[in-house]
Parts: sequence; structure tokens; C-alpha cells
Amino acid sequence: MAYKVLLNEDEIPRQWYNLAADLPHPPLPPLGPDGNPIGPEALAPVFPMNLIEQEVSSERWIDIPQEILEILYRWRPSPLHRAVHLEKALGTPAKIYYKNESVSPAGSHKPNTAVPQAWYNKQFGIKKLTTETGAGQWGSALSFACSLLGLECKVFMVRISFDQKPFRKVMMETWGGTCIASPSTETQAGRDVLAQFPDTPGSLGIAISEAIEAAVTDATGQTRYSLGSVLNHVMLHQTIIGLEAKKQLEKAGEKKVDVVIACAGGGSNFAGLAFPFVNDKIHGADIEIIPVEPASCPTMTKAPYAYDHGDLARMTPLLAMHTLGHAFIPPPIHAGGLRYHGMAPLVSRAIVEGLVRPESIQQLECYEAAITFARTEGIIVAPETSHAVASAIRAARQAKEEGKEKVILFGLSGHGLMDLLGYQKYLAGQLTNHELSTADMAKSLNAIKDFPKIPA
Amino acid sequence: MAYKVLLNEDEIPRQWYNLAADLPHPPLPPLGPDGNPIGPEALAPVFPMNLIEQEVSSERWIDIPQEILEILYRWRPSPLHRAVHLEKALGTPAKIYYKNESVSPAGSHKPNTAVPQAWYNKQFGIKKLTTETGAGQWGSALSFACSLLGLECKVFMVRISFDQKPFRKVMMETWGGTCIASPSTETQAGRDVLAQFPDTPGSLGIAISEAIEAAVTDATGQTRYSLGSVLNHVMLHQTIIGLEAKKQLEKAGEKKVDVVIACAGGGSNFAGLAFPFVNDKIHGADIEIIPVEPASCPTMTKAPYAYDHGDLARMTPLLAMHTLGHAFIPPPIHAGGLRYHGMAPLVSRAIVEGLVRPESIQQLECYEAAITFARTEGIIVAPETSHAVASAIRAARQAKEEGKEKVILFGLSGHGLMDLLGYQKYLAGQLTNHELSTADMAKSLNAIKDFPKIPA
Repeated sequence: MAYKVLLNEDEIPRQWYNLAADLPHPPLPPLGPDGNPIGPEALAPVFPMNLIEQEVSSERWIDIPQEILEILYRWRPSPLHRAVHLEKALGTPAKIYYKNESVSPAGSHKPNTAVPQAWYNKQFGIKKLTTETGAGQWGSALSFACSLLGLECKVFMVRISFDQKPFRKVMMETWGGTCIASPSTETQAGRDVLAQFPDTPGSLGIAISEAIEAAVTDATGQTRYSLGSVLNHVMLHQTIIGLEAKKQLEKAGEKKVDVVIACAGGGSNFAGLAFPFVNDKIHGADIEIIPVEPASCPTMTKAPYAYDHGDLARMTPLLAMHTLGHAFIPPPIHAGGLRYHGMAPLVSRAIVEGLVRPESIQQLECYEAAITFARTEGIIVAPETSHAVASAIRAARQAKEEGKEKVILFGLSGHGLMDLLGYQKYLAGQLTNHELSTADMAKSLNAIKDFPKIPA
Repeated sequence: MAYKVLLNEDEIPRQWYNLAADLPHPPLPPLGPDGNPIGPEALAPVFPMNLIEQEVSSERWIDIPQEILEILYRWRPSPLHRAVHLEKALGTPAKIYYKNESVSPAGSHKPNTAVPQAWYNKQFGIKKLTTETGAGQWGSALSFACSLLGLECKVFMVRISFDQKPFRKVMMETWGGTCIASPSTETQAGRDVLAQFPDTPGSLGIAISEAIEAAVTDATGQTRYSLGSVLNHVMLHQTIIGLEAKKQLEKAGEKKVDVVIACAGGGSNFAGLAFPFVNDKIHGADIEIIPVEPASCPTMTKAPYAYDHGDLARMTPLLAMHTLGHAFIPPPIHAGGLRYHGMAPLVSRAIVEGLVRPESIQQLECYEAAITFARTEGIIVAPETSHAVASAIRAARQAKEEGKEKVILFGLSGHGLMDLLGYQKYLAGQLTNHELSTADMAKSLNAIKDFPKIPA
């Protein structure tokens, strides 16, 4: 038995998989300010046209350019591990596999889309990208990608994370990027928030507004915005994870996988691992597919499927998605990448269609799982990833109760070496659980009550 | 052409290589307090007998137990990368390869010996290990290994690093280890230093004294000490790096390697990559083999080959090695792992025999090289590793001047994600070079002037 299943570079997938082509109902279009569907040209000030084409594509398979593969080869294909030591510790008959995205130089799955986004922008003649980052994984990944492709990169980082994690900024700067705290005085959106709330900790919604504004108001016309999750083309780029994992499970001799698990904040990590398996499910396979979120930010498990903006300043089109309302500010849990108010339209659609079954887990169970994982498998996972670990442990325990030799696959989306503050607090007994109350959710959803409704 | 050369688990080396078997002259024995060579039994309070046997072994090949391989499979064999993007940036005809040890869960090469040391101690009935750590790489690695094998682990961490890098402690604790600042009040050695210098930043020499004392004075008799470098058995365990690299270069179609480079603090990273190539050189191969050290701590390039203690409190036997004197306190450069006063006896012997050619490089050139590497190859390397990168860039530029298509291999001993403070200061222009003056070296060497001399 192999502990790791590797693929050689010539075994890397050469096409991305587009779930939009296989969904029973096509995804709903984004709406403009007038409530009517927007065309691709409306997105042109924000994204380059080659990425917009991917965003609206209904092609099932999209070729990955050779030059992009040659950049991804720095760390891809990533390893698939068998978690033998965790299995033993749990005494489960289940076989647990994990796909390890922590081996990228930026430490997470994020470069899988940062590299293609930077590449397509460069092809289109763009010189500079702007973006936002919460926990810092995405800002690091885009700085990394821009560095390798010779683009400028400017990152608006949510202030509370900017202050708590000064070394994320150093990472970005080492790769030549610029990182400033959001809200900043550099944009109208930032100045408006600061005027009203000078001591605000910031939020991803505000930072997105700032990054879009900085891109569309750049006088050179050679700056665009880049988003690390939520959008269709981001989901697309990440499917390389699941496509590799399928090949690796086959190499390991697994004819069937029973449970696929990944954490979901904006949805790209989950989509990347799971969508190729959702395709199998659409075509009849019996697989349980679980996106996991924090109980404190229950976008998928409690919030409605509705039209909403992706950002606080309402600069984005209205997207059909599960949403807690664009002004939602989650409690201060340590999984910064899982604190977004919305969920990717494609993931939301898969939930509505009953193809995937979301789960929410409390913070303390996640850290307990992460400690178990570190002391058996050895890897210290990101706080986001700990949600997938906790869910995989639940599934393995259930298999034990049922006496079934299930095959469980989960996504190890990143390592936690830049996010040890949460571990420190957990080990010191200073963390608590957070659960969003129905009243607070209703209050937050009030902001979208007059928005266009999704047709039944 | 492949960007990475991978080995499958069944291609992992099944024996370690012992350079002592091939050196033209046998290594000199350690001496006891009376100036006479000590026997293995003198080390028994400090190390388990199975490791002492490895320490004094003259066998060329030593089998790696299957159970150890099964732990190493979590990340080994590690990848060999071709630094195509760096080559392009330098415009060199040289081919640059690097062996990537940053993929271990602890982020460096250190687990290659931490795992076997913990395993042999456990076999011998030991329940707890003590050790010291400077920058934190070794303490993290031993905590990691003890966690996987169910041993207790106690780490004495040099105070200045303990204060500057609080998250190293969190890493160790996540793996169940204990980490305290050294000097501490827990040992006589620590109390003595604190009485004289209450505000001391600590040093590796003091921390080693504390860790040895804590092991040998433990009343249960089930505690031993573990050292992360310097000793013969540590060099031995690390040779898995170079043995893998040789197989990988062969797979890549390279019939010959011209230059092998690795940084050297205590010597184990260098020995691990280089000793299998030193063997080739002894048997006639034309290879330049370069251990690299900081100009501020020029153990190999300026210090004498002499008998000295490994620690400040003079608890260790006298070892024949290049040494700056056991009381040497180096300037505050950021490569914490390269600030040790001595050099492994086996590496020192290879220098004396003319088999390897040490090089020293200044701090600023190292960080400049690390930035170039991050922006081409993508990986942010450890400050220690930056010395190897700088030397590889020198060698590649020389190949360009000479118009020769050389094959250069260097060791990427670890990533720098836990050591970004140095990058921050470098990027802010706050770092300077440090070079040890002849007068300061003479002062430091005064402490060993009356020690037994090495026979000519």
C-alpha cells in the first residue's frame, strides 16, 4: 500500500471541468442595477474579456494553456495522501484520503486560479491587478502569481487581519506585491466607511469594493480586478484539484468514493475538489458530497438562495446565491477564509438541485480535529481546512458505527503555519463557539428584502 | 523536460550512507575530561545505546528500519526541482537543480533525523526526549516526531528566538511538545547563567547545556537528550536526502553533477545532501562540493580545526572540529540555524581532507538571492537556505562567464514562512552585513587554548 499517490507532470489534467454544462438547470444570470440580466460587456471594466468568456461559458471542458501548466508544475500535480495514521487513531474501517494543496509555495489551493487569472490578464495586455484578501491566503497567492508573470499586484487586506498577521504583508512584498489595510483612504468606498466608522475592523465586502474601485478608476486602463473565489471562472480553474484526485484514487485502486468533503467560504476550494465528483453524481454515481462551513457564518445551511451583491458598496452585479446579506459581519472566528456572506452561484445551484449536502461545524470541534490530525498525520492545517478535517472525522466515525468500509476523500486546502494564533488561543482554552442567531440573520437579510426575487 | 523529478515510495533509499567508512583517515575520537578517548558507555546517560552504536559505527551502509520509512512516507521521497525560471532570469547555460526539503510538515530537513532518533529512543524504552533549538526548526521537528511516536518532548529555546518567534512555540505545542525559554530556572546551567547575566538573549551553547542536564538528571532514567546536528548519527540519517537526489538526477538524465551546494550550521543539512557525492569524489569523480556559512560565523572558512566542547557549560565531550570556541556568541544575523560555534566532526574532517571547499557569504547577498528565487521559482526559502541559493547563483554566473553548461545541485533545506522577520527588515533596508574580525575571533578562541591538541 502507498501512503501517497503521486502523478507525474505528464499526467496532469489538460482541461478544466465546467459544471455549468452539466447542471440540470442552467445557472441564473447576474443582474444589473436595473434588475435585468447583464451581458459580458458590462463586466469589461472589471475583468479582461478572455476571463469573461470563461465566466459565461457553457462548454464542458476548457483547455488549459501549456504556459499555465508550466507554471503550475512548480508544485502540481499535488499529492494524494492516505491518512493511515488518522484511521488507526479513530479505529475506523473507513479509508480516508486527502488531497494536499498545502504544498504550493503560497501554502494553499489559491494559486490554482491566481496563476491562470494573472496569465489571461497578461495575454489581454493588462499590467496590474487589484484584489482584496481576508485571512491573507488569496492576497499571497495573487502576489505570487503576478510575481512569476511580471504583473504589478495591489492587495486590500481586511484591517483586522492586516494588524493581526503582519507577516502576510511581508509574504506579499517578498513576491513584489503591495498590501494596504482596508478600509483605506485610497478609494471613495474606503473613505466613506472610515468617515462613519473610523475604528472599523474592516470586512471582505468593504475590501472587495475598494479593490474594484481601484481597478475601474485607474486612468491607464491597464488595471483589472481579480477575485479569488465565488465566480464561475474561479471554480473552473480549481477543478484541476478534483480531476487530479480522481486519477489518483484510480491509481490507488479505488473503484468508488463514498464521501467527498471540502470546506467552503466563497466556494472555490469546495468546487475545485468536488465538481468532478458532482458530475459523476449527476450521471448516477452514489456519492455524498459535503461542503462544510462554520456555524457562525451559515451561508449554505441557514441562509436563503437569493439575489445579492458580492460586496458591501454594491459595486458587483446581483448574483443568485446563498447569502446572509452583503452587510453581514461574522463573529471573530479564526477561519478568516470562511467568513464571507455569500456562496458561489455554481455551488449554491448545486445545493438547490440537491446534488450536495452542506454541513456546518462549530469552531471548537474544528480545532480539536486539527490537533488530532497534526498529532497523527503530522500536518498543521489552516483553520479553514480544519472544518473539512472535522467533517471527515465525523464521516469516519459514522462508518465505524455502521461497520462500513467507506472511502472518504477530503480537501486539505492549506497549511496553518501563517495562522497559528488560533491554535495558540485554542490550546490556551481561550476560544469559544459562535452560532448565528435567527434574529441576527433576519436583521442582516433585511438589507436585501427589496432586491429582485429568484423565479420559482 | 520535467520541472520536477519525483520518486515513488518504493524507490526510497533503504540504507543510510556513512561517510566515516570512506574517509581517507578515520574520524578522530571524542575525548573525555581527562583528555583520553571516551568509549560508547560514557555517552549512555545522554543517548540510547542503539544510537550510540550508529554514532561510532564504521559500517558503510546502515539499514533504515521499515517502520521509520513508513513515517517518512508522509512527505518522502521529496521532490527534486529544475530551477528553469531562475536559470532564465540569470541567463546562465548552467542547469540548476534543487532538492526540496521544505515539503516536510515541519518545513525543513530536520524531521529526517528527528523521526529516527525518536524511533530508536522508543525502541530502547525511553519515554521522553529533551533538546535545544535556536531558530526553532529543530525543536519543531523533534516535537513533530515525538508526537507521531507517542514520546514526550521538552525543548529549551534560545530566549531571543523564543521572544521573537512566539509561533514556533505554538507549533511545538500543537504537536504536544513543551517549549521554554533558555536560559531557564529549571537547570543548574540555566540558573548559573541567569545569576551572572539576567538579561542574556541566550545561545545555542547554553540551551544545549540545559537540555543535556535535564535529560541526565531525570530521576526516572527514561529521559534522553536528542541533538539535531553535529553528531555522526545525525549526519547519517540525513544522507537520505543526497541518496534520493542521486537517483533523481539519474532519472533526469544527468550523467554527472558538477557542483553540489548546501548551507552548513552544525553540518547535518550539508552532510545529508553532500556526503553521497563526497563518496563519489573520493572514488575519483570531479565534483566541487561547497558547504556555505555566514561571514558573521565563519566556522569553516576561518576557524581552526581543534578539540572543543559542543556547549557552553562544557558538558559534552571534546570533539575534533572546526570551532570558534564554545563561548562564541555570533552577531544577530537572521539565519539562526547557522550561528553555531562548531561544525560537525565528519564535515570538519572532509574539509581537512580537501574533499569539500567551504564558502562564506554576507547576509545582504543572501537575502538578495532569496528575493530573486522567490520571484522566479516561487518558494520563500528559510534564511539559512538563502546561503545555498546565493552560492548557487554565484556558481551559475561563473558558468555563464566560462560559457560552460554545468550541472549545479543545491539543497533547499526549508521554507521561510516562520522566519519572515528577516525578509521584512531586508525589504525595509534595515539589515546590514556582519563580518567577524580577527581580533574578536582570537578572543573567542582564547577559551580553548589549553585544550588537548589535534595530532598533526
